[in-house]
Parts: sequence; structure tokens; C-alpha cells
Amino acid sequence: MDVFISGIGMTRFGKSKDSLEKMLADAAALALKDAKQERVDAIYIGVMNVEEFVGDSNFAALLADTLGLTGVPSTRVETASSTGAGVFETAFYAVASGHLKNVLVLAGEKMTHLPTAKTTRILSEVIDRSERRYGATMPALAAMVTQKYGQEYGLSPQRLGEILAQVAVKNHYNGSLNPYAQFRKEITPDDYFKSQMVSYPLRLYDCAPITDGASAVVLTSGSALVKVSGIGHATDTSAVRHRASLTSFNSTKEAALKAYTMAQLNPSDIQFAEVHDAFTLFEIIGTEDLGFFEPGKGCKAIQDGTTQIQGVLPINPSGGLKSRGHPVGASGLAQMVEIIQQLRGEAGKGRQLEKSEIGLAQSIGGLGNNNIVTILERSDRKRTLVEGWKPDYHPELKVLKKEVVPPPAEGTGLLETFTVLYATPEGFRSPLALGLVRAKGGEKVMACNPDYRNPKELRMGQKVRLSMREGLYLFEKKTWWTRLKDWGKKKPKSHHQA
Amino acid sequence: MDVFISGIGMTRFGKSKDSLEKMLADAAALALKDAKQERVDAIYIGVMNVEEFVGDSNFAALLADTLGLTGVPSTRVETASSTGAGVFETAFYAVASGHLKNVLVLAGEKMTHLPTAKTTRILSEVIDRSERRYGATMPALAAMVTQKYGQEYGLSPQRLGEILAQVAVKNHYNGSLNPYAQFRKEITPDDYFKSQMVSYPLRLYDCAPITDGASAVVLTSGSALVKVSGIGHATDTSAVRHRASLTSFNSTKEAALKAYTMAQLNPSDIQFAEVHDAFTLFEIIGTEDLGFFEPGKGCKAIQDGTTQIQGVLPINPSGGLKSRGHPVGASGLAQMVEIIQQLRGEAGKGRQLEKSEIGLAQSIGGLGNNNIVTILERSDRKRTLVEGWKPDYHPELKVLKKEVVPPPAEGTGLLETFTVLYATPEGFRSPLALGLVRAKGGEKVMACNPDYRNPKELRMGQKVRLSMREGLYLFEKKTWWTRLKDWGKKKPKSHHQA
Repeated sequence: MDVFISGIGMTRFGKSKDSLEKMLADAAALALKDAKQERVDAIYIGVMNVEEFVGDSNFAALLADTLGLTGVPSTRVETASSTGAGVFETAFYAVASGHLKNVLVLAGEKMTHLPTAKTTRILSEVIDRSERRYGATMPALAAMVTQKYGQEYGLSPQRLGEILAQVAVKNHYNGSLNPYAQFRKEITPDDYFKSQMVSYPLRLYDCAPITDGASAVVLTSGSALVKVSGIGHATDTSAVRHRASLTSFNSTKEAALKAYTMAQLNPSDIQFAEVHDAFTLFEIIGTEDLGFFEPGKGCKAIQDGTTQIQGVLPINPSGGLKSRGHPVGASGLAQMVEIIQQLRGEAGKGRQLEKSEIGLAQSIGGLGNNNIVTILERSDRKRTLVEGWKPDYHPELKVLKKEVVPPPAEGTGLLETFTVLYATPEGFRSPLALGLVRAKGGEKVMACNPDYRNPKELRMGQKVRLSMREGLYLFEKKTWWTRLKDWGKKKPKSHHQA
Repeated sequence: MDVFISGIGMTRFGKSKDSLEKMLADAAALALKDAKQERVDAIYIGVMNVEEFVGDSNFAALLADTLGLTGVPSTRVETASSTGAGVFETAFYAVASGHLKNVLVLAGEKMTHLPTAKTTRILSEVIDRSERRYGATMPALAAMVTQKYGQEYGLSPQRLGEILAQVAVKNHYNGSLNPYAQFRKEITPDDYFKSQMVSYPLRLYDCAPITDGASAVVLTSGSALVKVSGIGHATDTSAVRHRASLTSFNSTKEAALKAYTMAQLNPSDIQFAEVHDAFTLFEIIGTEDLGFFEPGKGCKAIQDGTTQIQGVLPINPSGGLKSRGHPVGASGLAQMVEIIQQLRGEAGKGRQLEKSEIGLAQSIGGLGNNNIVTILERSDRKRTLVEGWKPDYHPELKVLKKEVVPPPAEGTGLLETFTVLYATPEGFRSPLALGLVRAKGGEKVMACNPDYRNPKELRMGQKVRLSMREGLYLFEKKTWWTRLKDWGKKKPKSHHQA
């Protein structure tokens, strides 16, 4: 059964005095009015961490009551930072089943009321426990991904910074036009380079902000101007060190393959996209993973203006997570709201895209391990589906066999990527150097060193000494001093002496 | 599209040393083996509060990875304490849509590792904020419901206690036969009356325990012996004081009406049921709300043996939440596992029911405000569905108009129901008297008084004085002293002087 979108609504994103349920109720009221519905058959509500941000359980029922829809079935759905897309997917199936006709889909998060270190700690709980215990945050892992990308495609730190700045500048420009955006101001490359370092090489302007906000859509099996053409969803390893590649996300590629196949559309059919730019480089990786550009060529598209709002393939016309803001549970659904506005031709002056019949949203859960791709299309676009159709999209899925032997407690290794984290979570000293080290036996480990305070002290790919301190791997540069330590306790041949 | 259950699995419930993901993986492995499936199209995982019990976000993706199903889409679903039924419903729609063929449904909770007062505090977050701030816990609210039921149907405290004891004795007997149950021991009425008071009149043996555990089923659009015949889901007001009746749950009745209608079955067609007995009286209310017995007649069914495992309508042959245990997120799905075992004739010696072709599960979310009713049936039972069929079930849905005027800051009222809570949550003094007071203007308020330590000091329906202390309503019995206080500050005519 086809599923259509009959209503949309959202709050302006930003710092809000309103409670989470007030914001959701506001977004819901707009969407219901737009859909000309008073009652619905069910409510699906996406919120990532209402327990710790707000201190509530049983939020789905509370929300139905708050909306004046007491009695209506209400279910909470969560897929980490892709929750807004996850709740959309879940509600899509419910309507597609034929058992429910009209469904209200809501997504929101309330984040700005807590101290930043606490918010950072809560957000870090999406990271694998074994890596989180080093103090790794989302910006820290994204920074290590960014460093690796730079190395893999031969970009100097200066060059890499210029590219990231261009993403930030583009998305802030787009956000300046969007009445729902948290930051409605343009920035210059100079502003970017002056912004504070969060986790080297990522600056404040590389990272999506902490935001309050809510979005809503009404799905229906009755007809409407916009329909859901394709949905794909995939997971990946919980630990980033278990990935074969850091510069591309399997979960995006698997999800995209499913979405293109279901929609019977190719990457080249997509006219514009909302791509999960929680960190500037993630937009570039996203456009490569989605098959818009070859691996490593996403940078070029940013430089030559392809992805600008006036470009051939506008990416994040809304301003993206970067500038619209990122209330974690809400963002995935806010992407849909933007796409639907564009498809309906209601985006407004200066923002409305010319080609807007097919749009795609990509949402990332956690550090790229619960990703969802959704394709929306105008329902007046006539085409017929063909049994057994296959898209012109053949992504390479790199899979690393997980470690089966315990990694060595001591030894040498190569610093595969690193960051120096300045905005540490509750309970961790700042700054904190974190690295992914490929140990001599081939296993990868997360390692830290609070003594390296300047990223210039470290180098991608350099040899390091690994040791265990208080249950955590410590990495140290090879110096006469670490060599002396190694000489002091000559290791037996096996690594597995721990 | 019809949806069948091709595999089931669960861990033994109880206190476990295993992590939440280990328990879920164990249950999943059993269900997948039973279904003869290695891969599935998606995973739906129900867990009520993984954030606070375990400290994880992004748990759905972690779980896919833990199961060795890295890549498979994974979504977390939550509806408070009915989460196990909520995730089943959500996955049902996904399979019914035709987009997914085989889906793994998991539900679990890890609770026993935390101090009881902390667990109590976390569990209390399902209660409306405005009532939770009084220190109200789930047992406290259930105790007030129990008191009200006793009053409404003219049961003396002694008589009421005897009936509750019979529910506990029955469910412990059933649990003693169930290899998955937390408590595999029979109890006597004497054991019941000797057990400690949790929240007057509810004793330890009235309350489901704190439990670890996980359950799993595989849903498929391919054929299998058991199929899903009906699902209904409904919410109710968040605050209990906004309900017109405390002795019956609208959300069960609305959910049951939908489930019976979808299944085209009447209450009299149900051969056995798993009913959410988080508190002994809830089983009795459940059997009334589901249309098995008239309001107030559920007690009789307990007394005359109708609901015993050898009775005409066995209720909770598994031992129920009371004796099988209650890992909050898991219980709703554990009910399904029990029903499927019974339908398949695999419940085992002494436990297998004779009539086991149609079973019903009722699960309660929060204090009866996110309830789900599911009807499962043997697929070899041939019958044809009729367009427009209506069940022989016409529950009375009592709805109270919510307060629109602010309740009075001071005044008199009637103590509609009360409890003395002994097991208080973190941060509250024990014991603590809590009451629902109907103020003179008609509005109901939650109120407390830490000075009444003995329930015998209070009486259902008695006149009390209401005042405000530190932002909370305090209730006091009418005495010469409270009368003097009132005389001291003669109120103006309007209640709304605050």
C-alpha cells in the first residue's frame, strides 16, 4: 500500500524555554492542521534520550495526553541520532500494513537546559562502551575520521581545513534563509578558522550545535502530493575500531542500496538531498556513500559549487544539522519536513529549489552505525515500477573481521588516526589525546594519552608504544625514553602475556 | 498480509549475572534456531529504560552487532512497562506491510544490579510528573487503586486481603511449574499475610519482583502454526487523578475492543490469558476489563477457581509477572512466548492447558495508560472473517473532564483513596502517606502527609483539610486543631486565591 505525507510541522530549532512536550505539541498541531485531521489512528514519537535529558519514562503516553489525543495508541521509537528517520520508517510500515490509515509522526529532543559537559556525556552514550571509557565523544571520533580522510586522500591539514570551512559556510548560508534554523547568519571562512577547537582538527563550526526542537508529519494511506518512494536502514559495528574503513559508512551504503532498490531510482535521479552533517566532513562522506560522487571526490563538489543551493545537486538546502540545529531525536524528521516543503514548492523565496520532484534524506545513528536513507517524491510524477529492477549503484562494502584474540597489553603499533579532544565529557581531564592504534598483531585498539596537549606533537601513521594503565591502553610516541622502557622489560614472543 | 510466529525463546527470569545484551542474545539464539533462520530482515528491540538501568544509548545497533547480525536494521521501541507488547505490535505492522518477511523481535531489561531505592526511582518515572513529585511510586498508586476497589465493591480490608492472597497463591503455584519463572515455589496464604507491607494494603507478595530477563520471537509472513489474530493498543491520561474511574482501565478496554474486532472474536472465545499482574489486584481488574467477568465479579472467579490452571479460564498459566518475574521491558513479550508454547502444546507436563487454541495477552504500560491487548491463535483453526463484524463486547469507557481551573491552594476535601508507602523512592522519607483528595470545587489533587505512619489513622472517604507546603498539597484529618487553623484564616468565597 502506498504511503503519503498529508501534513508537516516543526518548531523553530534553537534554545527554547518550552518543555519537550510543548514543542512536540506545537509541531503536532501544525502538522494536523496541515493534514486537516483532528484524530489519528496512532502516534509514533521519536526521542533519543528522554530518560536522561528530561527524566521521563512513559513519554509516548504522556504525549498523547498532552496533545489532547488521550486514548490514541502511542509508541516511542529510537535509533540514536537517526531517531527522527527511524520513527518515520516505523510509522511508514504501520500505514503500509493497511491496519492504520492516518498516523501522526513526531520527533523531538530537549538538550540545551543541561550543562554542556553533562550533555556531552549523555550524547557519548551512543558510542561503544569499550571506546567511550577512554573519554571518546562524538566530536572526538568524528575528528579521527576527518584526520583519516585527509590522509587517505592526500589533503594537507590546511587544505582539509579549507574544505571543511566551505561546508560550514555553505550550510550557514542556507540556514540564513531558513526560518526554522537555529543559526540564521552567514559565516565567512575567517569566522570558521577563528572558532574554537573542539577536537582537533574539528572546530566549533565543524560541529552541529546543541539544540531544542521538534518536527512532525502526518502519514496517510489516502492520497497526498508527496509520497514515500524508498526507505533503507542498516547498522554497522558498534566499535569504530571494528570497521575496515573509517572514511565511509557501510550503514549508509547498505541503507541507500535498499532505498534506491525500493524506489527504483538511481543516485543520478536524486535532485537534492538532506545529508546528516553532524560534523562537516560527514556531509562530504555522505554524498560519496550515497553514490552522488566517487569516493574522495566529495570535496571537489563542495569546491566547485555543485552542492550549493543554486548548484546542480543542492545538499542541505535547509542549512543542515550544522545551521538548522541538531535536537538529536528530531533531526531525521526535520530533514523530511524540509524535503516535503521543497517538493511542494513551499520552501519560500530564495530557498525554493527549481528542480524539486525527488529528494533524499540520509540520517546517521551513533557514529554511523544505525543509518537510514529515505526517498520522497511528488506523487504526480508518473512512472511505473518494474519487477526485479536493480539500481545503477554498486557500493563497496568493506568489512573487517572482528578481533578474536585479545589485543596485546603491551607492544608497539601504528597510530592509525588521532585527535586531541578539548571539550571532554563529565569526569575527563581536558585536553585529552585519543588515538586508534593498529597493534603489531593487527588488532586495532583505542588508546589515550592525557600528556599530549598539542596535536602538533603527534603524526598520522607514526610508530607508538602501547601499554596498559588503569585498564586503559596508553599510547606514547617512540622516543629514547619509551625505547628504554621496552628494553627494561623485554617481551616474550607472544603478544598475549597479559 | 497474515503474520505468523515461527520461533520463540527466552532466558529464565530472575537475578542474572549476565549483561542485558548477553541475555537478549541468548533469547535471540533460541528463537532463531526455533524458526530455522540465520538472518532476518530487521530486528525490533524493546527495552524500557536502557539509558538509566544500563547507561547506554544506541542500544539497537549495539544489539545487532552483538548478535552477529551487523548490518541488519535494528530499531528500539518503548511503551513503558508494556514495551514487550509494544515492540511486538510494531514488528507485526512491519511484517504485515509486506516490506519485511522475517523479523526478530526482542525484549529485555536488566534491573537487579542497582540499589532498590534507585530502581524504584527509575520505575517511578513512568508516573506523571505532577504526581511523582509527591514520592508516588507504582506500588503506591496501585495500593490506592486497590483501596478504592475494596471500597467500591464493599470488601472489608480482611476480605480484600484474602482475595489478593488467592491471586498470589495461584500465580506462585503456576510459576512453580514454569522452568522460566523467577520464583519456582508455592506460597500459602499465611506466607502472604506474613510478607512485609510495601504500600498499604499491598504486601511484598502483591507486587511483581525486580527481575532480569529477555524474551524473543520471530515473526514471519511465511506460514507457521501460530498466527497473530488481533492487536489493540490505547493510552489514557498521564495523571491518575484525571481518570473518572480508578478501578478499571480505559486503555485496556479500548485496546481489547480493537483486538476483538480485528480478530473477530468475543471475550467468550478466549480460552486462556496472560494478564498484567504487576500488582495482584491488576489481574482481577484485567479480567473484568477484558470482558471475561462483570465489573466487581473478578474476585469471585479467583475464589471459585475459574482462573486456576485447571479452571475453565486459566489466567496467567505462566505464573504471571508476579511469579515469572517482571523485567519491565521483557514481560509483554514473555506473555507471548507463554501463549505460543501453550498453543503449540509445548508447555510441558503439569502446565500444558487442554483447551489451547486461542490465547490473549494484556500488557499494561505505566499506571494503566499505555496498554496493549494481543490475541494469538493456532493457524490450523479454520474460520472465515466477515466484513463489518462487531464483537459482543461493549465496555463502558468512563472519561473525566480534566481540571481546567487551577485546584485550590487551601480548602477542604474528601480523601477519595490513600496509601501509606513504606518502600519510598530515593530522596523520600519512609513511611509516607499519600492520598487522592477530591477538593470542594470538584478538582482532584494528589496530596501527602509524612506524619501519618499508620494506615489505621486514615479512613477512605473521610473529610480532610488541604493546604500547600513547599509546593505540594498536604492533607490533614479534620480535628479541632485543623478547624482552628481554618478559623484563623477565613477563606474568601472563591477557591482561587493562590
